[in-house]
Amino acid sequence: MSTTPAYTRLEALFAKAGTLNDALAVLSWDMSAMMPDGGAEARSEQVALLKTLAHETITGPGMSDLLDQAAAEPLDGWERANLHEMRRDWVHAAAVPADLVEALSKAEAACEMVWREARPAADFARVLPTLKPLLALVREAGAAKAQALGVGIYDALLDQYEPDGRSADIDRVFADLEAFLPGFVDDALAAQAARPPARSLLGPFPRAVQKELGRTMMAVLGFDFDHGRLDESHHPFCGGIPDDVRITTRYDEDNFTRSLMGVIHETGHALYEMGLPGGRWRRQPVGRARGMQLHESQSLLMEMQACRSPEFLTFAAPLLRRAFQADGPDWQPDNLARLFTRVERSLIRVDADEATYPAHVIIRYGLEKALIEGRMEPDDLPGAWNDGYRRLLGIAPPDDRLGCLQDIHWYGGAWGYFPTYTLGAISAAQLFDAARAAHPEIPVAIAEGDFTPLLGWLRTRLHSLGSSRSTGDLLAQATGRGLDASVFKTHLRRRYLG
Amino acid sequence: MSTTPAYTRLEALFAKAGTLNDALAVLSWDMSAMMPDGGAEARSEQVALLKTLAHETITGPGMSDLLDQAAAEPLDGWERANLHEMRRDWVHAAAVPADLVEALSKAEAACEMVWREARPAADFARVLPTLKPLLALVREAGAAKAQALGVGIYDALLDQYEPDGRSADIDRVFADLEAFLPGFVDDALAAQAARPPARSLLGPFPRAVQKELGRTMMAVLGFDFDHGRLDESHHPFCGGIPDDVRITTRYDEDNFTRSLMGVIHETGHALYEMGLPGGRWRRQPVGRARGMQLHESQSLLMEMQACRSPEFLTFAAPLLRRAFQADGPDWQPDNLARLFTRVERSLIRVDADEATYPAHVIIRYGLEKALIEGRMEPDDLPGAWNDGYRRLLGIAPPDDRLGCLQDIHWYGGAWGYFPTYTLGAISAAQLFDAARAAHPEIPVAIAEGDFTPLLGWLRTRLHSLGSSRSTGDLLAQATGRGLDASVFKTHLRRRYLG
Repeated sequence: MSTTPAYTRLEALFAKAGTLNDALAVLSWDMSAMMPDGGAEARSEQVALLKTLAHETITGPGMSDLLDQAAAEPLDGWERANLHEMRRDWVHAAAVPADLVEALSKAEAACEMVWREARPAADFARVLPTLKPLLALVREAGAAKAQALGVGIYDALLDQYEPDGRSADIDRVFADLEAFLPGFVDDALAAQAARPPARSLLGPFPRAVQKELGRTMMAVLGFDFDHGRLDESHHPFCGGIPDDVRITTRYDEDNFTRSLMGVIHETGHALYEMGLPGGRWRRQPVGRARGMQLHESQSLLMEMQACRSPEFLTFAAPLLRRAFQADGPDWQPDNLARLFTRVERSLIRVDADEATYPAHVIIRYGLEKALIEGRMEPDDLPGAWNDGYRRLLGIAPPDDRLGCLQDIHWYGGAWGYFPTYTLGAISAAQLFDAARAAHPEIPVAIAEGDFTPLLGWLRTRLHSLGSSRSTGDLLAQATGRGLDASVFKTHLRRRYLG
Repeated sequence: MSTTPAYTRLEALFAKAGTLNDALAVLSWDMSAMMPDGGAEARSEQVALLKTLAHETITGPGMSDLLDQAAAEPLDGWERANLHEMRRDWVHAAAVPADLVEALSKAEAACEMVWREARPAADFARVLPTLKPLLALVREAGAAKAQALGVGIYDALLDQYEPDGRSADIDRVFADLEAFLPGFVDDALAAQAARPPARSLLGPFPRAVQKELGRTMMAVLGFDFDHGRLDESHHPFCGGIPDDVRITTRYDEDNFTRSLMGVIHETGHALYEMGLPGGRWRRQPVGRARGMQLHESQSLLMEMQACRSPEFLTFAAPLLRRAFQADGPDWQPDNLARLFTRVERSLIRVDADEATYPAHVIIRYGLEKALIEGRMEPDDLPGAWNDGYRRLLGIAPPDDRLGCLQDIHWYGGAWGYFPTYTLGAISAAQLFDAARAAHPEIPVAIAEGDFTPLLGWLRTRLHSLGSSRSTGDLLAQATGRGLDASVFKTHLRRRYLG
C-alpha cells in the first residue's frame, strides 16, 4: 500500500490538468500561427471547454482536504515542492468564484475589443467606460486571491505571473534603477554621439533567406528541431510545450535585424522550456518553468547579453554576409555592434533598446500598482503616463496611441505582468555574469558559435530545476546573490559607456 | 419548462463530446502536418485523454435511459434524426467493454509498428504473429457491436465507417462490377492502344508554383480560405473541422499531376465538410457528414468526374501552361486528357486509375469479409490476395510488399473500410449524372472554371442535409435511384471506350 495515497492521487489529477493545458498550448499556437479567421468561433468553444475541464480537475470537491492530507505524508524534496506548487495552482483556481471568473473573462474580451479600435484612433476616452469595470473586476479577483495567499492585492496579481514575487522587492530594485537611468541614458547618448554612427543595412532581405538564417541561429544556440518549430505570427511568441516548443517570428524584407533578434529572444525562452525536468515531472506543477522573471531572463540573456555582444557579432557577421550575399564595411562586426546596441529615447516599449527599456517598465509598474491599490483612478492614466515619460525619459507622447494605449496588457486583463520584463533583464545580467565567472571560456566559445558551455551551465543551474525552488533561491544559488540591479548597471555602463 | 428535457440534456452532452472531437481533429492535423517527431509522446497523452473524456461524455451512467426518454419526447424531424445518430454513437461507444477497447488499441499500435518493418521487407510472416491477435480482438469487438446493432459482424464493423451500410447491398453492386470489369479493362486498354499515346510532361515543377496552382484550383472549386488551409503531409488527407478544414498534399517536383489531382480530391472532401449544416447542428451527430461512402463520393466527384473531364482540362490547360511557363502540344487539353485518364493494370491500389481501382477494392472486400466472418485464416491471406489479382486484373504481385502488405488499414485495425472507396466512386457517378440532368449548364460552366452550379446543387441536395437521412435516402432523393453501378459503368464506357 502506498504511504502517500493523497499525494499520489494529486499527481494523477495534476497530470490530467497538465495534459489538458498541453492540448490548450497547441490549440493556442495554432490559433496565432495557422488558423484562418473563420475558425475563431469554433476554436473559442474548444478552448473554453478545455479550460473549464482543467479548472474542474484541480478544484473538484475534496481538493483542499487532499492537499492537507498530502502535506502530512512522507514526501521527498521534489514531491514536497510539487505539492507546494499544486497548492498555489489550487489557490489561484479556487479563490475566485465561478461567476466572477466569467464576468472577468467577458470584461476582458469586451475591453480588448474596444481597445483595438481606441488605440489607432488615439482615443482613450473611448476605452475608459470598459476599462473601469474591467479594473473593478480585476481588483475584486485580486482581493480574493490576496486573502487566500495572505499577501497584498498587487502581489496577489503579480503571483499569477511571478510566483512569490513581492512588490516590496521590486520597489527596491526599481528605485535603484530609477535613480540610475536618466543620467545613464544621457551619458550613453553622449558616448554614442562621440562614436562613428551606426550605418543601416540595405535590403531587400528575402523572407526565405531570413527564415533559413533564423533556423541556423536557433540551431547554433541549441534549439532542438526534433522538439520544436519556427513559424510566423503577427505577434512573435514562444508557445507549445517542453517536448514540442513552437516559436514564431514576423519578417520585414526591408529589415532583418528585428526578426533575427526576435528569433534569438524566443529561442532563449524555448531553451528554458526544452531544458525543464522530464520524465515524472513533465506536466506536473514542479516541472514547469519557474515564472516570468526567469523566463524573460532566458530570452534576454540570449538576445541582449549573449547575442548583442561583440563576440557573437564577430561570429555572426560572416554568416549574415553569406546569407544575404552582402559585403562591405557596414557588414563588419564593429558596425553590426553599433547597430545592435543603438540607444534612443523612444515612446514605444516594444521598440525600445536595452538601455531605455527599464524606464518604460518602471512607469507602467508604478501606474498599475497605484490603479490596483486604488490610489489612482483610470481617468488620470493619460496624464500620469505622460508625466512618467517626461520624468524618466525626458519625452512625452503626442497622443495616447503612442502613450497609455500602446500595450494590450491592461485592456486584456493582464495586471501585474509588466515588472517581470525588467526583473528578467536584471536576472539575465546576473546569470550571464555568473556563468562567465564559472566558465571563463564562454565568451570565446560564443565567438566561435559554440553555445554549449553557456547552455550547459543554464541547464544545470536553472532549466533542469523547474519550479523545485523559488525564483529567489534559484537566482541566489546560481549567482551567489539575490536580485540586485548592480550587475545589470555594470553591464549597461560597460557596453554603452565603456 | 422544456417539453424535451431529456433530448435537451443529450444535445448538451453531445455538443461537449463534439467540441472535444473538434479539438482532437486539430491536434490530429497538427500531428501529421506540423509536429516534430519529438512531440509524439506528449501528443499521444493529449489525444488519449481527450478521447477518454469524449467517450465518458456519451457513455455516462443513465445515457441509455436518457436516450429512451428522449425518444418519447415531442421532437421535430431533425431532432429525431439527431437522436437516432446519438444512439448510434452511444452503441458504438458503449458496446465494447473498456478493457477490450484498450486491448484493441494496443494490438493496433503493435501490429502497425511491425507492419512498418514487414512491408519494406516484403515479409508477411513477420507481421502474422501480431496480425492474428489483432484480428481476434477486432472480431470480438465486431461481435459485441453486431449484437448491439442487431446486424452481422461484418456489417457492424462497416457501420463504423458507413452507417447502416449492409454487405448484402455491397455484394450485389460489387458482383455487377466484378462481372463487368475484366472485359471492360481489356477493351479500355485496346482503345487506349489505338489512340495517340499520352505524352508525359517534363519538369521540374517547382514546389512553390505547384502550391500556388493547388490553391488556385481549390478556390475555383469553391474552397473558402477563410475557413481552411492547404498544407503538406506525408499522406495527404482532409482534416480539421467544418469551420476550419485542413487539407494536405505532398509535392513531387518531377510530377505535378499527382499532387494537383490529390488537392482536387481533398478539396472535394473539404467542400462537403464546409457545406454541412451550421448553427445549432454544428458539433451535433446529425450535423456530421453522412459516412465514408458519400464523403468519398464528394472527393471522387471532383477528382474523377469533374476534373478529369475534357471540359475541365480545357479550362485548366492555359492555367497550367502559365503556372509552369510551359507550352507546346503536350500542354494542350487533348494530351492532358490522355494523361489524366490513362488506364493501366497495376499492383498498388493508391496508384490505380479510376477504371481499375474497383478491382483492387473488390479483392480486399472479399478477403476482409472472409477473415472477419471466420471463413478464412490470416495465414492464407497472401495466396488468396494473389489469386484475386490474377482473377480480376490478370496480374500477380512478385512479393507481399506489392501484395497484401501494401495497405495500412488491416494492420492498423481498420476493417470494414475498403468498400467505401468504390461505393463512393459509384455514388459520385450517380450524383454527377443527376446534377447534370438537373442543370445541363454544368459542363459548360466547368469549362469556364465556374463550379457554382455544381456546388450549389451538391450543397442543397447533400451537404446541407448532414446526417439527417440515411445514405440510401440521400442518394435516392438526390438521384432518383438507389445505389446502382450502371451509371458508373456508363461513365467508364463513355470515357474509356467512347
